Amino acid sequence: MDEKIEMATEEWTSMDSREWILSAYAEDGLPSSNHLKLKNIKLDSIPDLHVAIQVLWLSVEPYLRSRMTGHQDGLYLPPFDLNQVVTTCGVGRVIRSKDGNYKEGDMVVNYLSPVAEYCVVPSHLLRKVDSDAGLPLPAYVSALGIPGFAAWVGIELLGKPKPRENVFISAAAGGVGMFAGQLAKLKGCRVIGSTGTDEKVKLLKEEFGYDDAFNYNKEIDLDAALTKYFPSGIDIYLDNVGGKMLEAVLNHINTRARIVACGMISQYNQPWSEREGVRNLLNIVGKEVRMEGFMQSSYLKDHFGEFAKEMVSYMKQGKITSKHKIYYGIESFLESLTSIFSSSNVGKVIIQVNKDDHDHEDNMEAHA
Amino acid sequence: MDEKIEMATEEWTSMDSREWILSAYAEDGLPSSNHLKLKNIKLDSIPDLHVAIQVLWLSVEPYLRSRMTGHQDGLYLPPFDLNQVVTTCGVGRVIRSKDGNYKEGDMVVNYLSPVAEYCVVPSHLLRKVDSDAGLPLPAYVSALGIPGFAAWVGIELLGKPKPRENVFISAAAGGVGMFAGQLAKLKGCRVIGSTGTDEKVKLLKEEFGYDDAFNYNKEIDLDAALTKYFPSGIDIYLDNVGGKMLEAVLNHINTRARIVACGMISQYNQPWSEREGVRNLLNIVGKEVRMEGFMQSSYLKDHFGEFAKEMVSYMKQGKITSKHKIYYGIESFLESLTSIFSSSNVGKVIIQVNKDDHDHEDNMEAHA
Repeated sequence: MDEKIEMATEEWTSMDSREWILSAYAEDGLPSSNHLKLKNIKLDSIPDLHVAIQVLWLSVEPYLRSRMTGHQDGLYLPPFDLNQVVTTCGVGRVIRSKDGNYKEGDMVVNYLSPVAEYCVVPSHLLRKVDSDAGLPLPAYVSALGIPGFAAWVGIELLGKPKPRENVFISAAAGGVGMFAGQLAKLKGCRVIGSTGTDEKVKLLKEEFGYDDAFNYNKEIDLDAALTKYFPSGIDIYLDNVGGKMLEAVLNHINTRARIVACGMISQYNQPWSEREGVRNLLNIVGKEVRMEGFMQSSYLKDHFGEFAKEMVSYMKQGKITSKHKIYYGIESFLESLTSIFSSSNVGKVIIQVNKDDHDHEDNMEAHA
Repeated sequence: MDEKIEMATEEWTSMDSREWILSAYAEDGLPSSNHLKLKNIKLDSIPDLHVAIQVLWLSVEPYLRSRMTGHQDGLYLPPFDLNQVVTTCGVGRVIRSKDGNYKEGDMVVNYLSPVAEYCVVPSHLLRKVDSDAGLPLPAYVSALGIPGFAAWVGIELLGKPKPRENVFISAAAGGVGMFAGQLAKLKGCRVIGSTGTDEKVKLLKEEFGYDDAFNYNKEIDLDAALTKYFPSGIDIYLDNVGGKMLEAVLNHINTRARIVACGMISQYNQPWSEREGVRNLLNIVGKEVRMEGFMQSSYLKDHFGEFAKEMVSYMKQGKITSKHKIYYGIESFLESLTSIFSSSNVGKVIIQVNKDDHDHEDNMEAHA
């Protein structure tokens, strides 16, 4: 433990931290240091029913981009307030509590964690990590966090896969994609993924059990690629990218196929009127396709328990593998966020906030 | 009865008729006399389990266009065979039968009726008109035919309307639209329609009970129109047109809305790559929209009976009104088909094949 924590656990006076604030909205293109700024702050009081947390792991999610535009569009999430801290799913350690249900040392998950080194938050936002499960902490922002849950809702609840169905997953090596493909394989499907590098194609096939995968930066004729990989057409498409890939899929879709619209990462950095239009939606009529969008948050209340039980069981049996791209230190947030919109990452992007806290790092890229 | 029928009912030798054949595929634009030709034919034998029919009423449907392109695209219906008769839903009178279940004078519905004056068809394609229902014959190609059934599947099975929900119907004065709006009203919804002339706007409000309607040729800023007519957003959209209207709707859609994709008439006359792209599909994610396409034929087996019972009941109670645009004579097929793709028609387009058969015409535009 570092000096700051020791001070905190003894007598709370005030505490230095750093947090990322949004200082200006980024209408299009990638957010930059013109929009996101790392700010020094002091935490100087803990109200009742609040706890102070040392943030350990933070999830870097594509959807965060859509909260930085200053208007509701597409995902319809509320924009972050200007000059306020940005939030994402995080795991941390309670270092001081003013809620009898939490004690120092408790590990907690917070879906609205400040992107900060330390924070003081209302305890009702927290969920305790079940230490008996024996899973590495990063799993709680990954397989057991938003990406794992989104993959599960998309494949199991909405995709309703039947054995031997043909499943296509875009952004397949990303946070949602890597779990979605594994879940579809566990249901007996034939699973193909698209991703942006040959290294990730290899990963999909060798680590995540995809039946096949292709690099969309090399096989740029998407129609030809889908003809090759789906000679019997596509029954389920988990769409993480939208745009041209969705259009190509619609030309290879089977009757009564399900398109589960999970996100459209190719479309987040433009105003909607400049996005790629999908011209062949008529196929949705002729092929009687059901295309359904979802936000994982809507399913948390009714389904998270069922999901967590299933996912923990899979993980303990070694049936679900994770791969993480780790950025170190709170200062890496901007870089890690923009990296998502390139093809440069392999696996789920997370930040290890305290560079020196290696407690859980050993498990990071191991199979759970 | 005319001379030809008398001959037929006495001793069958051969019989003159005229039928429309597709002589060349029309890749884009409207089909013309280069593609569709009226041909004189002779019917000279009736195989066992076939009947000879005098065709009385024919339904002119937008989907027929998609069977004239020579390839499967969009609706994925098989192209008509070249130099063979074109088929559509029709009502006719049995004039000679080689099936014990049918006798001369029986009125029958045939979903695959030749577009002809007379025809010889396998009897398994036929469904008898229930003369006890006392409904006018054109109803069987309209409220009780494909458009009525499509409207019912779209609104009741897939739209699942709840009272006071906001329902939007495009091509609202067309065959499907006029019934869809009335069915949604019967479910207690607020229903708004778009159509192409002021006359039809008036019809929607005054005859079909729409709460409001607008002329998309006048209110060309669709976004502004939807802002005006849907201050509380859209819960159900029955899409008959696709393209720009669908895009505009996606900017006004409520959370968990249903988009029922019934047809996309604005898109039938171009190859898919030249169609209007829809750029804001990301809204499907953020608003958790379910967009589902359907072909009414897939629902016939399981649901037609339930539909017919409900629709006949509504019609007898005067709760469903029909409006038809009648073309007279088999020679009018090409003109009536192309008319569907303009805004010129009011109501469901049908052909009365025998100009002199006025038996049922009196009921044509009356409320059922």
